[in-house]
Amino acid sequence: MDSTKSTEETAINIPRESSSTKHKIAVAAVKAVATPHKRGGMKRGVAIFDFILRICALAAALAATATMGTTDQTLPFFTQFFQFQASYDDLPTFTFFVIANAIASGYLVLSLPFSIVAIVRPHVTGVKLLLLILDTVLVAFTTAAAASAAAIVYLAHNGNSNTNWFAICQQFNDFCQRTSGAVVASFIAAAIFIFLVVLSAVALRRH
Amino acid sequence: MDSTKSTEETAINIPRESSSTKHKIAVAAVKAVATPHKRGGMKRGVAIFDFILRICALAAALAATATMGTTDQTLPFFTQFFQFQASYDDLPTFTFFVIANAIASGYLVLSLPFSIVAIVRPHVTGVKLLLLILDTVLVAFTTAAAASAAAIVYLAHNGNSNTNWFAICQQFNDFCQRTSGAVVASFIAAAIFIFLVVLSAVALRRH
Repeated sequence: MDSTKSTEETAINIPRESSSTKHKIAVAAVKAVATPHKRGGMKRGVAIFDFILRICALAAALAATATMGTTDQTLPFFTQFFQFQASYDDLPTFTFFVIANAIASGYLVLSLPFSIVAIVRPHVTGVKLLLLILDTVLVAFTTAAAASAAAIVYLAHNGNSNTNWFAICQQFNDFCQRTSGAVVASFIAAAIFIFLVVLSAVALRRH
Repeated sequence: MDSTKSTEETAINIPRESSSTKHKIAVAAVKAVATPHKRGGMKRGVAIFDFILRICALAAALAATATMGTTDQTLPFFTQFFQFQASYDDLPTFTFFVIANAIASGYLVLSLPFSIVAIVRPHVTGVKLLLLILDTVLVAFTTAAAASAAAIVYLAHNGNSNTNWFAICQQFNDFCQRTSGAVVASFIAAAIFIFLVVLSAVALRRH
């Protein structure tokens, strides 16, 4: 805003000056042209950081999907109350968790080319705005998956005496540890998504 | 970007022209000044919409907090397995839900003055960037509360035969209906937060 104002003032002041001050104007013009280039470098740095963060988020989301998706424990004994086997698809929340994290991984893979476009052309804001909006939706998506799975994992660990829901982790210890790990990975992916949104917003502002 | 470039070009071209074209320059200057004003009007409209959405989100978050916080059902009978009374603080997830929605309500009240600043001064981007970042964090916060409560409410409605967790909604029907309503209100608040982030991003881009 301020830079625009100063160039406007220059445009009004110029005619009052003599034509010998052409050199001065040329210097001012060079300065005005040089500033966006410097900004472009900063923008490019942010865009490269954005690309790296996306790969980290992809790793976290894939780890969450794979850990939860392959969780399967068969017990060597059985009791009156518990099954022989615990798998992620025994609980609908864990199924949602796997699907949501798989979608997040897929989105991240598809967003990588757009992130590269943002590196190559740092001044194109349309791509950044699109990524920001989709990233915000994915923040909600990954957080929802992680939080709902966390609520179930907490219940599996501690149970609840008021509702008579028993803790199942005494029996399915390995199952509980793997699901806990998957929840942590998904929360990391969600945190990276929040950071990506903030980064895009800062980059949009400097335009 | 484009408007800055055009004023630069004007600044370079002026000395070549005769001093009689002062009128032309004045017109160009007026145009350059007029454009931000038009944009300011659009920005102000977006800022007012942002303010209204914040009040809607506040209503949703307060409704979620109040509905969940006052949920308390005493049964006229008792069985071997279930308690006489069901309250939100019997389940840690519901306690988190109440706290998270209360924090979201408090944040929304505190953000209203900042939203008014954005209406009064549409060109100050610092306030908008701050609100965007905090809104993104609150998206994650409200979604986490809503999703974890939804997982528990689903379990209360349907139970889970694999883990031997019984559905408690046959007994506590009123309790379940109120908690379901609170979850829906919290999801509405989360959706409005996402929309607020998108709105802020679009407003930042037009700067």
